[in-house]
Amino acid sequence: MNDCLFCKIAKGEIPCTKIYEDSKTLAFLDISPATPRGGHTLVIPKKHCELITDLNDSDLIALTRTVKKISNALLQYAEGLNVIQNNKKVAGQFIPHLHFHLIPRFEKDGFIIDKWSSSKYKEGEIDKTAEKTVDRKVN
Amino acid sequence: MNDCLFCKIAKGEIPCTKIYEDSKTLAFLDISPATPRGGHTLVIPKKHCELITDLNDSDLIALTRTVKKISNALLQYAEGLNVIQNNKKVAGQFIPHLHFHLIPRFEKDGFIIDKWSSSKYKEGEIDKTAEKTVDRKVN
Repeated sequence: MNDCLFCKIAKGEIPCTKIYEDSKTLAFLDISPATPRGGHTLVIPKKHCELITDLNDSDLIALTRTVKKISNALLQYAEGLNVIQNNKKVAGQFIPHLHFHLIPRFEKDGFIIDKWSSSKYKEGEIDKTAEKTVDRKVN
Repeated sequence: MNDCLFCKIAKGEIPCTKIYEDSKTLAFLDISPATPRGGHTLVIPKKHCELITDLNDSDLIALTRTVKKISNALLQYAEGLNVIQNNKKVAGQFIPHLHFHLIPRFEKDGFIIDKWSSSKYKEGEIDKTAEKTVDRKVN
């Protein structure tokens, strides 16, 4: 897409600090890493799409292989790793080009996924929620 | 693994609210959803492993297909979606069996990924960080 930042990076029109590239995918450092330790890497498909559900299976498999490859490299020096992929602005996706964040983690690095698992289902509610998803024909 | 909670769920020894199942993967609702709206789904490989880098490519591709399938179902009623996979305790992995969190998102649902992109690299530091990863033979 002409006005997409990540398409421009994929085409080399905007520079990046490249970690890895193949015919379908690109990995580069996020210039604003989630922790002061850095190493926060973005993995993108070269083909433009917005959501994880928008990418065809073949390109998604290529993307997954790159995510695994970079995860392996990062876990050789980091103590842990978050793999995060946000869909739509309400979920924290600010560049509408599908991307995985790979965030190397260290003790007390200050990165917090807040209010994690803070809720409980009321009685019967969990089954209704499951039906809502199954109704949408996941199978 | 004998004492693994998710292995027991995969074998049906511990009940779950199942969303989807095939020969290699299982998707079920997290009993402690990250938001009060619920729908927070866990997607796991049936084969035991701990980290994203531990799973063989064939099973990782099957897992990715299930992640996409469930994402598609969730995005039909949610306003957005976070796909999160944590590796090791320091990154928030409390069950040491590889799993993807799929978290349906809505405006003001209270889930916050905190301190996101709060850092900046000092001059020259970003290239050193990239070299550190490339040195670990990602290519």
